[in-house]
Amino acid sequence: MKRISLLGATGSIGLQTLDIVREHPDQFSILAFAAGKNIELTKEIIKEFKPKLVSVQLEEDAQKLAKEFPDSEFTYGAQGLIDVATYTDSDILLNAVLGSIGLEATLAAIQQRKMIAIANKETLVTAGHLVMREAKKYGAPILPVDSEHSALWQSMQGENPKTVSRLILTASGGSFRDQTRDELANVTVKEALNHPNWSMGAKITIDSATLMNKGLEVIEAAVLYDMPYDKIDVLIHRESIIHSMVEYHDTSVMAQLGTPDMRTPIQYALSYPDRLPRSNAERLDLAKISQLHFENVDLKRFRCLDFAYQAGRMGGSILTVMNAANEAAVGAFLQGKIKFLEIEDIIDRMMNQHENISNPDLETILQVDKETRKTIQTMLK
Amino acid sequence: MKRISLLGATGSIGLQTLDIVREHPDQFSILAFAAGKNIELTKEIIKEFKPKLVSVQLEEDAQKLAKEFPDSEFTYGAQGLIDVATYTDSDILLNAVLGSIGLEATLAAIQQRKMIAIANKETLVTAGHLVMREAKKYGAPILPVDSEHSALWQSMQGENPKTVSRLILTASGGSFRDQTRDELANVTVKEALNHPNWSMGAKITIDSATLMNKGLEVIEAAVLYDMPYDKIDVLIHRESIIHSMVEYHDTSVMAQLGTPDMRTPIQYALSYPDRLPRSNAERLDLAKISQLHFENVDLKRFRCLDFAYQAGRMGGSILTVMNAANEAAVGAFLQGKIKFLEIEDIIDRMMNQHENISNPDLETILQVDKETRKTIQTMLK
Repeated sequence: MKRISLLGATGSIGLQTLDIVREHPDQFSILAFAAGKNIELTKEIIKEFKPKLVSVQLEEDAQKLAKEFPDSEFTYGAQGLIDVATYTDSDILLNAVLGSIGLEATLAAIQQRKMIAIANKETLVTAGHLVMREAKKYGAPILPVDSEHSALWQSMQGENPKTVSRLILTASGGSFRDQTRDELANVTVKEALNHPNWSMGAKITIDSATLMNKGLEVIEAAVLYDMPYDKIDVLIHRESIIHSMVEYHDTSVMAQLGTPDMRTPIQYALSYPDRLPRSNAERLDLAKISQLHFENVDLKRFRCLDFAYQAGRMGGSILTVMNAANEAAVGAFLQGKIKFLEIEDIIDRMMNQHENISNPDLETILQVDKETRKTIQTMLK
Repeated sequence: MKRISLLGATGSIGLQTLDIVREHPDQFSILAFAAGKNIELTKEIIKEFKPKLVSVQLEEDAQKLAKEFPDSEFTYGAQGLIDVATYTDSDILLNAVLGSIGLEATLAAIQQRKMIAIANKETLVTAGHLVMREAKKYGAPILPVDSEHSALWQSMQGENPKTVSRLILTASGGSFRDQTRDELANVTVKEALNHPNWSMGAKITIDSATLMNKGLEVIEAAVLYDMPYDKIDVLIHRESIIHSMVEYHDTSVMAQLGTPDMRTPIQYALSYPDRLPRSNAERLDLAKISQLHFENVDLKRFRCLDFAYQAGRMGGSILTVMNAANEAAVGAFLQGKIKFLEIEDIIDRMMNQHENISNPDLETILQVDKETRKTIQTMLK
């Protein structure tokens, strides 16, 4: 039985993690979890999974819940995330919280030598150098949850990492893969949220449309697997059936395939090194799918991917700027404040005006993150 | 340095094995090899690789060669194959000889606890039960050389075999994949030898066109990986880029991909568990290939594949009948004695009139093999 601490329980990854726990009540339990402001859903999760510890965003919500559920402990805010992440009896932390708030919790859990399944991009994108250094120091395994990184990981099982010659991340191309840049100028939020393959949260769906999501994944892959950027390729693969590939120096390419279902990589991270059955999941039927398509990415068409390669190669605080600018810009787009292509413009501007700090510490990262968001907020007023 | 005993040096797999040894002179040497009647090519191989022991088919050829190459030992015939296979100082046997003559050599090498890379189909198809039992008894590893079985093997590295739910062998569909059965009635030998993807010997190219090759591979996969036949699927994949796949019970499918080049799986068998670089080989460029196609196989269209599943499920001496009948019928087709679809008819007839012997010993297998060929020979006179 693996006892799980789950950050971001009411989000897309969090809810799918609960599905997996539900599928395997003999294998997994939710020992502690953190949610935000969705208190109704939080209550349902408490009733079903009976966790020992629950954290929510606001103190007042924590207090109300404590009265209703006397068998669980309650905490809140940033400290609450850390409390859940480091909960003594938990075996594994699944960090699926959105944004830089997930970073401190990851580092705290590493210091407690927890096994950590990472779905919080900031952990690896903005603080990859810190996280991997600390993980090495404390011997805390960092396991990917993203379908692409899980595919890379699965494709490297039983292999010598020194024989890897290339990582090939596949990208569906997102909601607008068939549009020209001219057509992108006036796309709506609704159109942008209509992802062809994956069911995900709003922010990540927009990131799929700009390919920033793939850019962040390139950076995560570089950090997780210690690969130089010129050995990480992105390939447009509209069916999202091959989740990613690893090329070896004998020209063999190993790949993980499956129907697009985030619960499979989530389960793999939780069950690793074992694989557990997924009795109700859809099996891959390639004959039914009939064709798989592949094409190279045009970095001029998808500027965000280009930004990510640039920032990744530079390293340092510019990664935080890029990530925070993207989050703020996507937020503004979702609120109807800016047009779709202005997401790129904002990131570009913020990256250009930033003076890069190499090897930033946690405080610097959080500071740069805050400043970037503030600048954009002022700009958009 | 791995010292190789190579059976079938002048055949297609044999010559490609020599290419790999040539690519890695610091890793591999040809310590002993066996060839047939192609003495000119045998001489060239001796000059280049300076083996300690060489076997040819005929005694007179062995005697002539012994005079010309005083630094090597020479032997011949069936015993010669065994001498090469069991040569004391060799580390690995690569058995790429054609036909049932390869069987005794494999069993002899197993008893010497050699590591054995198998490209001789008879070893696993007709005597799989003996070979795997002996291999287990003597602790001799049996490694696949075929691209499909190598792909399955690579897709199982670092995995728990108990979590495998399905093996998916891909098939190009061969030279006639787009023809109707009516059109197949009058195809020529030249048309049959025109394989779309792979460069192979004549017999195996015809076997690709009938899909008997895939049928033999299904049986080999069942034997090598101890899988029931209802968990082994065949999928037509005309580009031969995904070389085969393994589905796990969590619905993940692991696959090995690459350009169609037999030297890569040959090298993998020789270098296992390491991967060595293949500097001059063509890397996979999926964007250039652009599309991969998949379709189910029609067992009425490809009767040989159906025969193989039937024989595989039955087990016993019928496997030898099917294999020998196929070899004899393909030989007759190549000599222009029968039409393409008569290959199927002959196999069907021989299988129908055979009284199956379960768990046959080596002697029985060789006897049934001989009788089957003789019956067909008489029939075609």
